[in-house]
Amino acid sequence: MDSKILFLIVSIAVSLLSFVFALWLNAWIKKQPSNNPRIAEVGALIKKGANTFLRKEYLLLARFAGAVALLILIFLPHPIWQGAIGDNIAMALCYLAGTVFSAIAGVIGISVATIANAKTAEAAKSGIKLAFMTGFRGGSVMGMAVVGSTLLGVSLVTLFTKDTTALLGFSFGASSLALFAKAGGGIFTKTADISADLVGKVELGIPEDDPRNPAVIADNVGDNVGDVAGMGADLFDSNVASMAAALVLASVLDAATGGVVNAAMVFCYAAAGLLASILGVSMARMGKKGPTHALNNSTYITTAIFIVLTAGATALFSFEWRIWGASIIGLLVGVVIGIASDYFTNDEKNPVRNVAKASGSGPAFTILSGISYGFLSALPALVGIAIAALAAYKICEPIGPGYAMFGIAMAAVGMLSIVGMIISNDAYGPIVDNARGLAEMGNLGDDVLEITDQLDSAGNTVKAITKGFAVAAAGLTVIALLGTFISEVNTAAAEMGLPAINGFDVMNPTVFFGMLVGAAVPAVFSAMLILGVDRNAQRMVAEIHRQFREILGLKEGKPGVVPEYDRCIEIATVGALKELIPAGLVAILITLAVGFIGGVEAIGGFLTGNIVTGLLLALFMSNAGGTWDNAKKYVEAGNAGGKGSDAHKAAVVGDTVGDPFKDTAGPSINTQITVVSLIASLAATLFLSYSIF
Amino acid sequence: MDSKILFLIVSIAVSLLSFVFALWLNAWIKKQPSNNPRIAEVGALIKKGANTFLRKEYLLLARFAGAVALLILIFLPHPIWQGAIGDNIAMALCYLAGTVFSAIAGVIGISVATIANAKTAEAAKSGIKLAFMTGFRGGSVMGMAVVGSTLLGVSLVTLFTKDTTALLGFSFGASSLALFAKAGGGIFTKTADISADLVGKVELGIPEDDPRNPAVIADNVGDNVGDVAGMGADLFDSNVASMAAALVLASVLDAATGGVVNAAMVFCYAAAGLLASILGVSMARMGKKGPTHALNNSTYITTAIFIVLTAGATALFSFEWRIWGASIIGLLVGVVIGIASDYFTNDEKNPVRNVAKASGSGPAFTILSGISYGFLSALPALVGIAIAALAAYKICEPIGPGYAMFGIAMAAVGMLSIVGMIISNDAYGPIVDNARGLAEMGNLGDDVLEITDQLDSAGNTVKAITKGFAVAAAGLTVIALLGTFISEVNTAAAEMGLPAINGFDVMNPTVFFGMLVGAAVPAVFSAMLILGVDRNAQRMVAEIHRQFREILGLKEGKPGVVPEYDRCIEIATVGALKELIPAGLVAILITLAVGFIGGVEAIGGFLTGNIVTGLLLALFMSNAGGTWDNAKKYVEAGNAGGKGSDAHKAAVVGDTVGDPFKDTAGPSINTQITVVSLIASLAATLFLSYSIF
Repeated sequence: MDSKILFLIVSIAVSLLSFVFALWLNAWIKKQPSNNPRIAEVGALIKKGANTFLRKEYLLLARFAGAVALLILIFLPHPIWQGAIGDNIAMALCYLAGTVFSAIAGVIGISVATIANAKTAEAAKSGIKLAFMTGFRGGSVMGMAVVGSTLLGVSLVTLFTKDTTALLGFSFGASSLALFAKAGGGIFTKTADISADLVGKVELGIPEDDPRNPAVIADNVGDNVGDVAGMGADLFDSNVASMAAALVLASVLDAATGGVVNAAMVFCYAAAGLLASILGVSMARMGKKGPTHALNNSTYITTAIFIVLTAGATALFSFEWRIWGASIIGLLVGVVIGIASDYFTNDEKNPVRNVAKASGSGPAFTILSGISYGFLSALPALVGIAIAALAAYKICEPIGPGYAMFGIAMAAVGMLSIVGMIISNDAYGPIVDNARGLAEMGNLGDDVLEITDQLDSAGNTVKAITKGFAVAAAGLTVIALLGTFISEVNTAAAEMGLPAINGFDVMNPTVFFGMLVGAAVPAVFSAMLILGVDRNAQRMVAEIHRQFREILGLKEGKPGVVPEYDRCIEIATVGALKELIPAGLVAILITLAVGFIGGVEAIGGFLTGNIVTGLLLALFMSNAGGTWDNAKKYVEAGNAGGKGSDAHKAAVVGDTVGDPFKDTAGPSINTQITVVSLIASLAATLFLSYSIF
Repeated sequence: MDSKILFLIVSIAVSLLSFVFALWLNAWIKKQPSNNPRIAEVGALIKKGANTFLRKEYLLLARFAGAVALLILIFLPHPIWQGAIGDNIAMALCYLAGTVFSAIAGVIGISVATIANAKTAEAAKSGIKLAFMTGFRGGSVMGMAVVGSTLLGVSLVTLFTKDTTALLGFSFGASSLALFAKAGGGIFTKTADISADLVGKVELGIPEDDPRNPAVIADNVGDNVGDVAGMGADLFDSNVASMAAALVLASVLDAATGGVVNAAMVFCYAAAGLLASILGVSMARMGKKGPTHALNNSTYITTAIFIVLTAGATALFSFEWRIWGASIIGLLVGVVIGIASDYFTNDEKNPVRNVAKASGSGPAFTILSGISYGFLSALPALVGIAIAALAAYKICEPIGPGYAMFGIAMAAVGMLSIVGMIISNDAYGPIVDNARGLAEMGNLGDDVLEITDQLDSAGNTVKAITKGFAVAAAGLTVIALLGTFISEVNTAAAEMGLPAINGFDVMNPTVFFGMLVGAAVPAVFSAMLILGVDRNAQRMVAEIHRQFREILGLKEGKPGVVPEYDRCIEIATVGALKELIPAGLVAILITLAVGFIGGVEAIGGFLTGNIVTGLLLALFMSNAGGTWDNAKKYVEAGNAGGKGSDAHKAAVVGDTVGDPFKDTAGPSINTQITVVSLIASLAATLFLSYSIF
């Protein structure tokens, strides 16, 4: 038995362990007491809404995935008329497996999140510690499911196919589902959130999560389908893509030496990361320093365990220390980028305070200053990614040809392997956010609300650091995918007797052509998603107005009068499903158009332009959104005029603009870049054979 | 006498002709009657404010230019300790000449614009035709001065120095002055514009240009220093840079054959463009179809004349027809991009109408939809530039090695050579805008106001097409400058015995490192300018509030009570001067840092990343700003609720956000890219000798 098989079996074992751990966490959550009928009722409404949306979304996406699988069957990795139909069947099956694994991870996450929310609200009655544990462990189920699925899926595909290109098919399945799940969930959640806030908080002045607000259930459903399921699909996608990129590069290196050590290393590091996450999650407890400290602390513990485990494995199996070094650099740069994001979105720092202050002069100044800080925030992150990539490359270059790019891929793998912990922290956010809503609607009293507010605020704070990780990891992953693309092109070129490509020269006008077009794609993609939210929210605002007008006694809170929650959920669902396909499809079709017009050189430029502006816009939108969100909270805490002042109204406008920035368009761009990179790699042979130039 | 000298003499003659024509236009304007004492008084205030600002700005910039000239003397083109001090002296003098020519063009433009505004207002009393001619001819003086200075300066530098690198020094002088003049003027004008609107129109509901508003004179001064002087410096810069890039590439081609034909062709086309502009301006008349038609028509006439003249010259002097073809393609793509910009900013098309409609749901929707359309608008322009560059390259590639890149440069030259006409149209805008203000303040009555409104609206409409030209030309120019950079690097490398560089491979991590950093620079630069406007406007809003509070009878319009206009002008001036230096300096210093860290490879990537995101952000900001501006006007024309409605208030917020987008940051990015590209070319030797990697 060679060492790769050994590591595969270990990987499968560790991934199964993570599922067992997830089951245990799930059982623990279900065991927590709950007895409030009102919370049970509202919780059931949220659960039903989320499941309805998810069912409709997955039905739509199943049709889409079926059509794509058919196209793959005909065209990829080679057109069916060139023979080797077995490869095409394998590729199509791997693609479908990628979509199914992604969907399963999403369903698991949602199903536990929609129980954990109510349990957390009720746990808050007996104190913050238990409530924290309930929320955190609810998020951890998602974390374990996503990372377990990644490792299991990649291991099984590797075990059953010999060809690493099939892995790209699996990764493409994960990505294409993530693209639409993130976009659809993002449009749903922000439609509901914006509409509920605009009519409830701004026009009528009723509190957040007030049960009179017809959009309040839709808002809570949105937290689940957008922030839990969508985000889970997103990180599943990044995680699979980073492993696939590393494995494709590893297979070339291993083929040259006849060994398996590099592929083995990828699995070993991934398994170590998952193990570190399991340990980190199981050790998490809230101490005296509060929930924020507990969340950040468990991230640091997981990181430390990962460093120790991989160092041990590197020593034990005589892996290259240089590659270990590249992984650790990626990790550390991720932390630095997280701290930089934190600076721009933390209400104790200048950017948020200046935006709050500017709001005193009116909403135009809120917007202008928030946009400016969003732009500024891109600098440290882009420089950090640039340095990480350069350092990983230079460290691994001396090992031998091809190792430099593998070093970048392993930096991404290293960083993403602790993603189990990152997701746990991230999914904690919407669960405690929901718990807050349930506590409000269940009339659990001010003490409980204070606890859930504290938990909620911790969720927002740790988001900055986790987002830093996510962007840095995505940046490194797509750079590695560029390497994968060249590797795929050269494999195809060798088969076709064409000369190998060494790189993409920006002075080549075909490359430059691709670059300018690629640069426009993230902007167009974001614009379509934002316009989707914009249109959809206008529809929902109209519906909320109608209900307050037509349902007598609703506004006054007359006992027994309830709004028609279902109508709002319906609008969010229908709108999100209508708007989610075009944006993703445009990105995919432009890629194919550029490839068939300009060939692989144009695609090389296209991917580069796409990465560069994609990272810039993702950072800009995520951080500007975070700054506005916290500036509003800072004003609400009594600064710059406090609640109800003109500054507050202006800050709410900023927050509303920031909502689709940070929760719809910004995070979807990562997925868009990954999808486009994978399509390029998969269609490399087609572009080589059938381009105009 | 060789043909290059001949063409140089012709060029100088044509440029002198344009100055004579400018003098004639100036005399014609001065001859127009004026007899309203109130207009004379207010006009004098505007003139004084503009001159004061310009004097202070140029004094500051003179110190800056002196410091830069000293650095050039020591370091460029070669460090002084390596000998050949004569080259350094020549370079420093050329740099200073570039700044002086740019400043002179700005002063000429301002001096006539601040006369033409009053003359136009008074001419409107006798009808629209004369008023149109006065405004248009006022703008044309600026157009002739800018293009005449370009051709004269470039010809003289070529005549007196043998080295084309000296031309890059001249171009750098023009660019560095433009960078600061555009930034300073842009901050001044938007500070005043935003503050005047926010307090006057939004808070107090008094009309635009109401003399009670303390910021009204500052606003009119801003039109001159930002839109006339700043814009003139900007287009002078692009124009010089495109000629310099083409001449550097031509000199390499000519050196290979021992001829001068390519350099001669550059001068010939530039002279033809100026001649076409002179003819186009002198033939402009307003017919029955109104001012918009007259402005667009004269652009089309100029374009046609240019095509005919260059075709004739190409036949006569046996120039390459392929290069002529590249120029024409550039021109046509410029028109297409103009039409695309027009679609996104025209109030008869969907984008503006949708933004107006979205405003009904509140300012957040105004902002979100405007940002989305701004992002979408980047696609056709970027694709257009990509196609133009690819086509110019492919058309000229068969001529021989090096001609492909020269083709791109000539496409830029061709497009920019009709810039005399473009500037005439552009500078017409602020003059008639000022005339409107003077008509309002001079109580010339509603009939006159209607005429000036009509002229003003025409100015806004043609802006879309001229901006399309400007962005397309800038895009092609900076691509050509990338070619110039490689050419300069290889000249230096040959001297130092280093291998030549053929291009910049994006798979090279040093190139990629530079690219990510370069991508961040336009975002950071824009953010700093916008924050400058934001801070400065907050100061001015406070001052206006103070005046309305403390000056008794001002708000009520008590006869004899006048606001302290000077204080507002002072705030705009001091703030603009304080804010203009840091943003430009950051861009310059990051370039030098990247060059000294990563060497020429990193700079190659840096320029590419800078161009790609720079064009994207410039298009996004210019067009989003235009969309908001026109959406507001569309609402004011009685749509979506009309004046005073909530939709109108929301649309005003959009317009305010758009102001620094379209008139400060957006257009400054072009200059930022040019400056950075020129620094890279000039410091090529230094980067080759002294970089860390």
